[in-house]
Amino acid sequence: QVDGERLLGRLKALGEVGRDAEGRLVRLAATDADKAGRDLTAAWLAEAGLEVMVDRIGNLFGLWRPSGCAEQAALMLGSHIDTVRDGGIYDGAYGVLAGLEVIQSLMAAGFAPARPIMLVAFTNEEGARYAPDMMGSLVYAGGLAVDEALAARGEDGTVLGAELARIGYAGALEPGFVRPHAYVELHIEQGPVLEREGLPIGVVESLQGISWRRVTFTGRANHAGTTPMAMRRDAGHAAAVAIAHLRELAAASGPATVATAGTLRLEPNVINVVPRLASFTVDLRDPDDARLAAAEAALEAFLADLAEREGLSLTVEVLARFEPVVFDEAICQRIERAAEARGLAFRRMTSGAGHDAQMIARISPAAMIFVPSQGGISHNPREHTEPEQLVAGANVFLDVVAGLVSE
Amino acid sequence: QVDGERLLGRLKALGEVGRDAEGRLVRLAATDADKAGRDLTAAWLAEAGLEVMVDRIGNLFGLWRPSGCAEQAALMLGSHIDTVRDGGIYDGAYGVLAGLEVIQSLMAAGFAPARPIMLVAFTNEEGARYAPDMMGSLVYAGGLAVDEALAARGEDGTVLGAELARIGYAGALEPGFVRPHAYVELHIEQGPVLEREGLPIGVVESLQGISWRRVTFTGRANHAGTTPMAMRRDAGHAAAVAIAHLRELAAASGPATVATAGTLRLEPNVINVVPRLASFTVDLRDPDDARLAAAEAALEAFLADLAEREGLSLTVEVLARFEPVVFDEAICQRIERAAEARGLAFRRMTSGAGHDAQMIARISPAAMIFVPSQGGISHNPREHTEPEQLVAGANVFLDVVAGLVSE
Ligand SMILES: NC(=O)NCCC(=O)O
Ligand SMILES: NC(=O)NCCC(=O)O
Repeated sequence: QVDGERLLGRLKALGEVGRDAEGRLVRLAATDADKAGRDLTAAWLAEAGLEVMVDRIGNLFGLWRPSGCAEQAALMLGSHIDTVRDGGIYDGAYGVLAGLEVIQSLMAAGFAPARPIMLVAFTNEEGARYAPDMMGSLVYAGGLAVDEALAARGEDGTVLGAELARIGYAGALEPGFVRPHAYVELHIEQGPVLEREGLPIGVVESLQGISWRRVTFTGRANHAGTTPMAMRRDAGHAAAVAIAHLRELAAASGPATVATAGTLRLEPNVINVVPRLASFTVDLRDPDDARLAAAEAALEAFLADLAEREGLSLTVEVLARFEPVVFDEAICQRIERAAEARGLAFRRMTSGAGHDAQMIARISPAAMIFVPSQGGISHNPREHTEPEQLVAGANVFLDVVAGLVSE
Repeated sequence: QVDGERLLGRLKALGEVGRDAEGRLVRLAATDADKAGRDLTAAWLAEAGLEVMVDRIGNLFGLWRPSGCAEQAALMLGSHIDTVRDGGIYDGAYGVLAGLEVIQSLMAAGFAPARPIMLVAFTNEEGARYAPDMMGSLVYAGGLAVDEALAARGEDGTVLGAELARIGYAGALEPGFVRPHAYVELHIEQGPVLEREGLPIGVVESLQGISWRRVTFTGRANHAGTTPMAMRRDAGHAAAVAIAHLRELAAASGPATVATAGTLRLEPNVINVVPRLASFTVDLRDPDDARLAAAEAALEAFLADLAEREGLSLTVEVLARFEPVVFDEAICQRIERAAEARGLAFRRMTSGAGHDAQMIARISPAAMIFVPSQGGISHNPREHTEPEQLVAGANVFLDVVAGLVSE
């Protein structure tokens, strides 16, 4: 059994780190708030007797390497502790702190693992400050050059490499320095499926494809009172038409396609000025890669048409593109057996959210465990999972890990 | 004749005051940039021998009061020197600096006016930082209590009264301290009419109605990957639908109606989060007040319907509402005669933009003179009027003023 009290206490403590003046949780990657969250997490890792390390992309590691098995390939457990703006306290942090709890429980029980266990908090999983998301795990898995990732420029004009150096988390280790034996990640579902079906455990066997774009229309600023409607080159109008269209685009693609415009910026952004520029992001997802590609093509065609019709110039930048992933069947079966043994009902499922497991799956067998999210709400301060569900998920995680390091 | 060189030189000099790091002209009301513009203007007023004064709302006055006519009601000439973000150098500044030029020309010619001339640069005409627009002239005309205006909170969270005090332009005079004999304002057209018809002078006999709203939808933030389209309460989607609809709303109202969404803000404004909140402004205008009221009602109904359909809460705040204004016929005729005498072709016209003259018309006979705007472009750095057109307009202004202070 894990120590549920300790896990819940740490989740609460870390959840208070990075509150802004209005009390919102804003622990964006590589900010001062992230540094504070990392410092606290690193202190807990060290206190537990783990070897604390940081790689060049800022991934934070806690390694348990008993002398008897030091040469074996490590089992990797991970997730992230960065958050979106005004996010919840469980997204990511739950997986990292439950991983620590699992290791400490095994240690306390005098368990002698057959291989090391390496816990990781990956950098910039959320992608809320720098694109793409899952950046630390993508770099670790060799999917993005570390120098390219460090050069990423954020929404706020900052550069990730400089920010990591500033907060003291630009490590020396080369990402990918350990090729894991296997990877397991515990996470809140962030969607409505488990709650709706009354199930405490989700066995995540796949993860949908993700496509991110930044779309920018440029027209001509002009006076809102003197410029006849027919003479306008209104970038804001075109952005509105495109964003309103996303719902139809998703519906035409199929019931599993989702499309979201999460950010938008107008210039000059003045009440009596026809917008010169409108820039917004599109997050498109689908479990089926061919359907995702078709939706992307439909979006590009719609945007080009619209720009032409409105006399605007258009630029489209692809910020992230990840194919759907199928997780390792053997690990999924281990999760099923562990849930069963604890008398916890479960189902196989796909993940709507992107996760670090999706990236590490490129270099290692991987799978995920989900616990329910109340009301299917996440990326929202009202994100919630009941304490007993959090503890139950951590116990299943414990059993799966114990099994994987017994061989 | 005015001194064209001096006028053009001052326009250019003031046009360099308030450039930001990217070279854009951003002289928003009561900012440091506005202070610099005011300081320069006040220095020119003093240098010309005018009595410089400031009232409680920050309106800046330059009074020519020859001893022989000091007891007579003053003729008022005015406009503004604040700009929008990334604006042009003529909008407002032209009227103020041409007014100064007219006064200096009369002085230089040894002209003995039958009444004082009071030149004004009104505070916050643009409304780009604080609503409503034409604030200084509205307060001066008694249409808004000075304390209420000073309490206005800007887009940037600042309070106008505190900002005026900070920049040293919170004067002691009570707005309205002089009731003008008449008011004349010279301005660039900011629209395409004069250029299209090849006319150097517009005689502005009316000004359309202006209606400003801030619309805010509030829904629920949620994860862009895990939240099915049907379960979203997407404030950004609703804002996009409403903004896209403005074009149809204007078309349904009539060819003279214009509708603009100039500003928009999403929360939390993160790529993978369904927007919790979307707040945007609507600028609606029409020369016919009944038609403007009908368009406002249609907008309100559309928004309420949309919010209901989307499961969002809605707040609508009226930021400004001004009826159309008809200017003084006698002054319009004076302008026509002056243009004619100088051999300059002209036409009667209405103004699409709001102007301080619209407010002062509440307490005094008022009218305006327009000069062409190249391409009809304004509120844009490419705003341009040819030097000879600027000088021609100032000479017509001179003749009208000379006539009005001869009696
Ligand atoms: N788990 C999670 O919210 N990840 C963020 C990446 C994404 O799905 O957009
Ligand atoms: N002249 C001018 O641009 N005034 C700003 C007020 C408005 O028309 O919105």
